Amino acid sequence: MNSLKSIFRPIKPTNINISFKPDELISNSQKLMLELGLIRQSANGLYHILPFAQRSIDKLISIINKNMMEIGAQKITMPILIQSKLWKTTNRLSKNLEDLYILKDRKSKEFLLSPTHEEVVTNLFSSDPTTYRQLPLMLYQIGTKFRDEIRPKLGIIRSKEFLMKDLYSFDRDQESAIISYNKVCQAYEKIFDHIGVKYIKVDGSSGMMGGSQSHEFHYPAEVGDDTLFQCKNCGFGINKEISPELVKCPKCSSVDIKCTKAIEVGHTFLLGTFYSEAMCAKYSDLDGTLKPPYMGSYGLGVSRIIGASVECLSTQNIIQWPRSLSPFTVCIIPAKEGSIEENVSQNNLSGLYNNLIEIFGDDIIVDDRTHMTIGKRFIEAKKLGFPFVVVMGKKINENPSLYELYDSSSKKSDYYELNNLINFLKKQCLEQI
Amino acid sequence: MNSLKSIFRPIKPTNINISFKPDELISNSQKLMLELGLIRQSANGLYHILPFAQRSIDKLISIINKNMMEIGAQKITMPILIQSKLWKTTNRLSKNLEDLYILKDRKSKEFLLSPTHEEVVTNLFSSDPTTYRQLPLMLYQIGTKFRDEIRPKLGIIRSKEFLMKDLYSFDRDQESAIISYNKVCQAYEKIFDHIGVKYIKVDGSSGMMGGSQSHEFHYPAEVGDDTLFQCKNCGFGINKEISPELVKCPKCSSVDIKCTKAIEVGHTFLLGTFYSEAMCAKYSDLDGTLKPPYMGSYGLGVSRIIGASVECLSTQNIIQWPRSLSPFTVCIIPAKEGSIEENVSQNNLSGLYNNLIEIFGDDIIVDDRTHMTIGKRFIEAKKLGFPFVVVMGKKINENPSLYELYDSSSKKSDYYELNNLINFLKKQCLEQI
Repeated sequence: MNSLKSIFRPIKPTNINISFKPDELISNSQKLMLELGLIRQSANGLYHILPFAQRSIDKLISIINKNMMEIGAQKITMPILIQSKLWKTTNRLSKNLEDLYILKDRKSKEFLLSPTHEEVVTNLFSSDPTTYRQLPLMLYQIGTKFRDEIRPKLGIIRSKEFLMKDLYSFDRDQESAIISYNKVCQAYEKIFDHIGVKYIKVDGSSGMMGGSQSHEFHYPAEVGDDTLFQCKNCGFGINKEISPELVKCPKCSSVDIKCTKAIEVGHTFLLGTFYSEAMCAKYSDLDGTLKPPYMGSYGLGVSRIIGASVECLSTQNIIQWPRSLSPFTVCIIPAKEGSIEENVSQNNLSGLYNNLIEIFGDDIIVDDRTHMTIGKRFIEAKKLGFPFVVVMGKKINENPSLYELYDSSSKKSDYYELNNLINFLKKQCLEQI
Repeated sequence: MNSLKSIFRPIKPTNINISFKPDELISNSQKLMLELGLIRQSANGLYHILPFAQRSIDKLISIINKNMMEIGAQKITMPILIQSKLWKTTNRLSKNLEDLYILKDRKSKEFLLSPTHEEVVTNLFSSDPTTYRQLPLMLYQIGTKFRDEIRPKLGIIRSKEFLMKDLYSFDRDQESAIISYNKVCQAYEKIFDHIGVKYIKVDGSSGMMGGSQSHEFHYPAEVGDDTLFQCKNCGFGINKEISPELVKCPKCSSVDIKCTKAIEVGHTFLLGTFYSEAMCAKYSDLDGTLKPPYMGSYGLGVSRIIGASVECLSTQNIIQWPRSLSPFTVCIIPAKEGSIEENVSQNNLSGLYNNLIEIFGDDIIVDDRTHMTIGKRFIEAKKLGFPFVVVMGKKINENPSLYELYDSSSKKSDYYELNNLINFLKKQCLEQI
């Protein structure tokens, strides 16, 4: 049985060295995540992911892996340490120097901590005389990335060290590259649909990447760094970065444009041959000639998606998770020690738990801090944002026992007999899939 | 269908910048892993994990997570960047300076890339006024670690950047700490038993960790850096580091001692209160007094276990995986294009595949390079070390069709009708679990 009592959630100021208060701008949701012990600052812009948030991240990773497998993308791991000289080949080192963490090893060789892997993956590709038969090729990884932000902020939404999923595609020609590009965009849409937080896809800026086409995935949020223009008529959207003013929609000519603040959670780039030419990466085509592959680069901010989706859904005092990423789907609150419900609650608990296991697997937690009142635990369960809370309160002593079920999406409670409770939750679970 | 043709396995020298030949000592198994495109050097001592090896690592991670859940250990992620000042508290910075990657951020704050997280996790623990009720506590993570090895060698067995599983335990007193310590040791034994490569557990050196008790888990291998003494009579073992000569067993007094070269793949330390005292970490005991928790620290070299288990099992030309970590369990080789078996092979393939999916799930791959002869593909399938290879050769045209099944553990082939083949593999799969 997963026990809430044993979950590690440090919630008080530390007594040494590192101050608790982040010396950075923090949003409401991130303050909640800190206060409830889901994340913790280890230094300015650096965060520990604690057990609750880790479960959420692991769920997101599963969703990503599944969708990557479906489009035939292959998982790899490239080292975090990148030789500076690789970035000199593409002239990116000088442009982004301040945001990069750079170090020298014991032999004075210079490395940077990877913020992104275009050069490395292109070099890796070039290490094989690939033929057109092996293309298209999609390689991805899920790993730690680094950016020495001048002003890290918003907890895990904009930290200096973060978890990214990055993918790189290689194709024979532009036509095929566009097919791969659309395939990844569709997979990203499926991932965001599955997560369930409303997102906006807009034409993006290619920024430091170069390349010809780019889209961005955003979660709308007041605290976001990006500003999006969206046509209310046809839905076309574009980042303010690439269109500082938009009075008329370039697609449908409507002048009904709205402006939204947002957090970027995904980005796709059609790169063309910039990297493959700079790094002399080639494949041999049907006629035997060596040609540079057309590339694409695609990113999802894994830890950022967790932070940003909580940012979008939460209220002042209550965390709300997208159900797909909630650390646990159901929290059970048994009766208080010494209460008149204690006996029945104890007798019924394992039956209830075993029934729920069949629906939710490992995804149930018991708030076994039975020295606390039900009321106090219920308030905290709401704060922590479990999609469902099952309370074994006064009506557990009725015949048959009645269970209170709180649904965090409707914010309402209802009473159920055991069988009806199980059937209701089973239905909810099926809808989710 | 998983297709061998599409799996990315770069196997030829690169054409730019980074030389293919590792400028480091390499063992036979690592040479095979490089030549077969399972790993690739990105710089001296730094390696890409490519799709085959990545699958193996992901399988190991699942085994680890499952066993950690069983002992109630909680998964977290601590940042890779560690403030140097934390390591000054315990005086470890000066002692290990050369092996550490150290950098300064844009504000000239000094950080090290984590080789291990004792200081960080102790500081994290101290950030909460934990009570005795919340102990024992076990926190673990699976993440990238760094060591600036003066002589990296043996590919992913001793690289500068590697994947580790590290766990830290916190207890009320020494008695309870020993219980936690034994629990983790048992979980490690279960993990190594599950992997299935013969291992040796010995009394270890506490090295840079300090602390009172320590054990090491080793895979015996000629190329290993460690030397172990083992009593042939009672099985007691000890690392030469802590007992430079061993003529008589300290447990049973036997003089029948053997000496084995080995690769360290796991290490456990009973730390006591060294870190908690140095970092002022305290919990409040039953009587309200604040006391330093007794700690333990435990590590498994995740990427190293992959490299070392292949090192132990492989021969000169053939990789052998422990079946639990094989990238794919079954490889199917359909008939060659234009052969007289092609028609039947094509007709039978999806039936065979679907039958195998029910046993092995995603764990099957088809060598669809049907422009190559069966013989050539069979040789490569043996080299790649799939536990089972199903060949759709000449006898596929018999009535009923006969499938050749090659078993890499016995190195023998037998012919089966479809039903018998499925039943045989089903049995093998059950034995594995």
